[in-house]
Amino acid sequence: MRWALGVEYDGSGFVGWETQRNGPSVQAAVEEALARVAAHPVATVCAGRTDSGVHAWEQVVHFDTAVSRSSRSWTLGANANLPAGISVLWARQVSDDFNARFSALSRRYRYLIYNRPIRLANLRRRMTWWRRPLDVEAMRRAAVHLLGEHDFSAFRASGCQARTPVRTVSRLDVERTGEVVSLDVEANAFLHHMVRNIAGVLMAVGSGRFPPHWARQVLEGRDRRLGGVTAPPTGLYLYAVRYPEKYHLPRVQPSPLVW
Amino acid sequence: MRWALGVEYDGSGFVGWETQRNGPSVQAAVEEALARVAAHPVATVCAGRTDSGVHAWEQVVHFDTAVSRSSRSWTLGANANLPAGISVLWARQVSDDFNARFSALSRRYRYLIYNRPIRLANLRRRMTWWRRPLDVEAMRRAAVHLLGEHDFSAFRASGCQARTPVRTVSRLDVERTGEVVSLDVEANAFLHHMVRNIAGVLMAVGSGRFPPHWARQVLEGRDRRLGGVTAPPTGLYLYAVRYPEKYHLPRVQPSPLVW
Repeated sequence: MRWALGVEYDGSGFVGWETQRNGPSVQAAVEEALARVAAHPVATVCAGRTDSGVHAWEQVVHFDTAVSRSSRSWTLGANANLPAGISVLWARQVSDDFNARFSALSRRYRYLIYNRPIRLANLRRRMTWWRRPLDVEAMRRAAVHLLGEHDFSAFRASGCQARTPVRTVSRLDVERTGEVVSLDVEANAFLHHMVRNIAGVLMAVGSGRFPPHWARQVLEGRDRRLGGVTAPPTGLYLYAVRYPEKYHLPRVQPSPLVW
Repeated sequence: MRWALGVEYDGSGFVGWETQRNGPSVQAAVEEALARVAAHPVATVCAGRTDSGVHAWEQVVHFDTAVSRSSRSWTLGANANLPAGISVLWARQVSDDFNARFSALSRRYRYLIYNRPIRLANLRRRMTWWRRPLDVEAMRRAAVHLLGEHDFSAFRASGCQARTPVRTVSRLDVERTGEVVSLDVEANAFLHHMVRNIAGVLMAVGSGRFPPHWARQVLEGRDRRLGGVTAPPTGLYLYAVRYPEKYHLPRVQPSPLVW
C-alpha cells in the first residue's frame, strides 16, 4: 500500500530534507517515526528536497508499507515519535502510480522578508531580516522578466545535479504587508538554490543596487557569477505542492504567517 | 537625562522581564547592554513585568544616564550587546517626569492560539496550540462579561502583589483568521497571570466546556479556584503600551503576526 503524507517543518534545526552524515535531517526523522508506526523500515520520497535551514509549510512525501493502519494512526503515531519542529499534517492512502516527486505538477515556495532597520527578535528564525527599504514596485518589474520558461543557469547552485537548467516559472508575486515583503513563486520544478537566488536578485533590485531589467541580464547571461547573493534560508518555506486532482490529496489551510 | 526605549523580545529563552536568580532575564540583558553603551551601571523600569516565557512586541522601559548619546547610539549599541531574541526598537529622550510604569495609561496584550487538531511545527514557540475547535462567537459573548471595571480576584495568581484586584478592561476582542484565534486585551493595568487566566476561561468557553455566562460567574466568585486553567505563556505578547501624547513616543508598526 502506498501512502502520501503532508509534513510541516521548521528547518532551523536540520541539515535539510535529505538524509546526510553531517547532522539531523528531516527525512531521517520522518522515516524513523514512520518505521515505529509500521514496525518495519520505511523509505520516503519527497516532492522537494529542501536545503539546510529551509522550512516547509507543506512538504509532500510518499512511502510504501505492508501493514494496515488508519490515516489517524499514521498521523498521530508519527507525530508522537517525531522531534519538535516536525509535524505530520495528514496521511492519505494513494494509488500505486502516485509519486510525491514525479506526480507533482508544480511546487510553490514563499520567501518572507522582514524589512526594517532594526534587527528581529520574535521572528528572527521565521523570516529573513533586510535592513534597507525595499521598493516592491521595482521588485515586481524585475520579477516579470523571470516569468515563463527559461534557462535558469544563472540562478542555479554550482553543485546542482539537474539534467536541464530549463524551468517554467508560472507565478512570481511580490507583496508588502506592513514591514513584511513576501515572494510567492511557483514553477514546475526548481533548481538547487533557485528560489534563494531569485530572492537575492529581487532584493538587490528592491534595495536600488540594480535596475529591474538587471534581472533579465542575469537570466540571459546564464552564469551564476552574474547573479546576486544567495538569500539566506531563514525566510524560505516550501509552501505547497500541486498534484493532479485524481489523487484527491487534502488541502492545507494557508497560514496567516505566509498569507 | 532620562531615556525611553521600546524593546521587543522572544520570551522563550528567559525567566521573564525581571532580574532573578534562577536564570537569564530580559531586564538583566538589557541593563548590561545599556551599561556597555553608557559606560556606567544602568537601572531600568518597565511598563509591564512579563512572566517567564511571555514575549513582547513592544515593551517600554526608561532609564537615567549622565552621558550624552544619540538615539541611534543607544539603539544600535544596545543591540550589538544584546543576546539574540532581544531587540531595542527605538530610543527617545524624555522629560524627567516620564515613568515607563507610572505614566502608562494602558497596556495591551495579544494572545495567539493556533487552533487545529495537529501539533505545530513552525509556530510552536510563537503561538499556543489548541486542539479542540474554538467557537469564537461563544468566546466573544464570554468576553463581554469581563469588560469594564471589576474586581479581578478570580483571574489573579496566588502570589500576586498588587494592592487592589480592581482593574478596568477597555478592550477584549476575539478574532479568527483561518486557524489562528487571537485575543486582544487592553486594561489600565493587569494583575499577575490575568491575561493568561482570561485566555484560559475564554478557551474553556470556546471549547464548549462552559457556557459564555460562566465568565461572569467566575468573575463574581472572586476566587481563583473557580476559574479555568492558566493558559501557557507561549502565545502571549505584550503588544503595546499607551502613554500621554505629551511624551511623543514613537509608534511601532503592528506585526502581521499579531495583526
